[in-house]
Amino acid sequence: MEKVKRNERIGALIKILTEAPNRIFTLSYFSEMFGAAKSTISEDIDIVRDIFKKYGLGEMETVTGAAGGVKYLPVPARDKALAFTNEMALRLCAPDRILPGGYLYMGDVLSTPGHIERMGEILAAQFYRNSPDFVLTCETMGVPVAMMCARVLNVPMIIARRNRGAGVAEGSVITINYVSASSKRLQTMTLPKRLVGSGQRALIIDDFMKGGGTAKGMIDMMKEFAVTVVGVGVVMATALPQHKLVDNYKSLLVLDEIDEARSLVKVSPAAWLTNF
Amino acid sequence: MEKVKRNERIGALIKILTEAPNRIFTLSYFSEMFGAAKSTISEDIDIVRDIFKKYGLGEMETVTGAAGGVKYLPVPARDKALAFTNEMALRLCAPDRILPGGYLYMGDVLSTPGHIERMGEILAAQFYRNSPDFVLTCETMGVPVAMMCARVLNVPMIIARRNRGAGVAEGSVITINYVSASSKRLQTMTLPKRLVGSGQRALIIDDFMKGGGTAKGMIDMMKEFAVTVVGVGVVMATALPQHKLVDNYKSLLVLDEIDEARSLVKVSPAAWLTNF
Repeated sequence: MEKVKRNERIGALIKILTEAPNRIFTLSYFSEMFGAAKSTISEDIDIVRDIFKKYGLGEMETVTGAAGGVKYLPVPARDKALAFTNEMALRLCAPDRILPGGYLYMGDVLSTPGHIERMGEILAAQFYRNSPDFVLTCETMGVPVAMMCARVLNVPMIIARRNRGAGVAEGSVITINYVSASSKRLQTMTLPKRLVGSGQRALIIDDFMKGGGTAKGMIDMMKEFAVTVVGVGVVMATALPQHKLVDNYKSLLVLDEIDEARSLVKVSPAAWLTNF
Repeated sequence: MEKVKRNERIGALIKILTEAPNRIFTLSYFSEMFGAAKSTISEDIDIVRDIFKKYGLGEMETVTGAAGGVKYLPVPARDKALAFTNEMALRLCAPDRILPGGYLYMGDVLSTPGHIERMGEILAAQFYRNSPDFVLTCETMGVPVAMMCARVLNVPMIIARRNRGAGVAEGSVITINYVSASSKRLQTMTLPKRLVGSGQRALIIDDFMKGGGTAKGMIDMMKEFAVTVVGVGVVMATALPQHKLVDNYKSLLVLDEIDEARSLVKVSPAAWLTNF
């Protein structure tokens, strides 16, 4: 076999590891791929680890045991995460984003894959240690960020459907009723039975939380499946009401105030981000 | 400034380039980041190019002119794209996927970020040269693959909502009626006005096409915005009806046959993939 240079191995290693976050690769796998000794690959991995550290590009984790190896976690550097969230907050504070009824226009931010990817990475980093088996969201605007979260956690992303009967191409579903905390209206949510197994662990991700009704609906849905909810994360939560239907959740951004009459909107990064 | 080793530069370059596909980076940008001469960075880029080529990890493209530089395109190697699509087709051919009414259960495949990412990359690679300004999809199951497509094209991903009035947090919308070609039912589709600018170029991406009604609806919607549609791509299209409401589209997979009574389902990779 042709000898592969270190430069080349480092480059290929970084591409392969970073495009499959949170997936364990054995040293043997790379050893075979590059025709190099495991000790050489181990040195390569150390170099890769240093590069990630130096440029704040994420972390390498070593997993010991029979199924051991190395994996890549795209944990954003603290300063980068905060700078990004600050930038998003600033952008969302524009008065022309105030919509009739005191809603905030976020469509452009939630349409940009680069932003969504950063949001997904920061949220996922809070829940790695909780080992979710899948990410659950409720259609529609939470889907992109839930997808990016699931990508870096290396787990499936499952979508609960809103206000529908059984989805035609989904087979048997479980349907629950829930109450939107802000509008007080009764809604329904459905989830295909075969997508979720009992005893699994779910991470709930959504774009926005006001009263927490939708998140609470997803938590209730998970009870029907005998699934443990290991975390709730949202892109933005309103400061008020302070008491939401869900106790523990992480939001990236807080909508402190929105006042249509005074053309005033205030968005800030969540407090926990400063201690991230 | 501390001298940065080539290993390190190659590693960081690959991480930075691959996590921002289709985005132009100038040599000066890297030259400053690493404190190295542009000629050195240029040599690094050549090494990166060779690594991508050797391991089938995508392509580097040089952009000339004042705004010139290099960019990364995650164009999947032909054999990898075909192997992946074949694997998906095989997986989808299981008789226990047949749902009442002759629908095919694809929920698990469309929930897996790794699969969605590959699908998005293969579809995007067909439309790079068409320079779309955004990717358009219609909720819900097309959102993940449209998102991944938009990510590698480095453009926004915009979601048309189905059967709704004005979305509360979206401001003014345009609503059109369209007819589902398979069910012959009248449906409505809405899109926020401020998300799309007239004169832009749209790539339409969806999960499934039978009669082509939804895709046709999106094309009609784009006419309302004076937007040019530069392509239509779907994960799966049915073989029948052969004549769909949309003429030119690319599908990754073809649903050749599905027969509930005989427990028969046949899915194959689209013919164009073999000449990819």
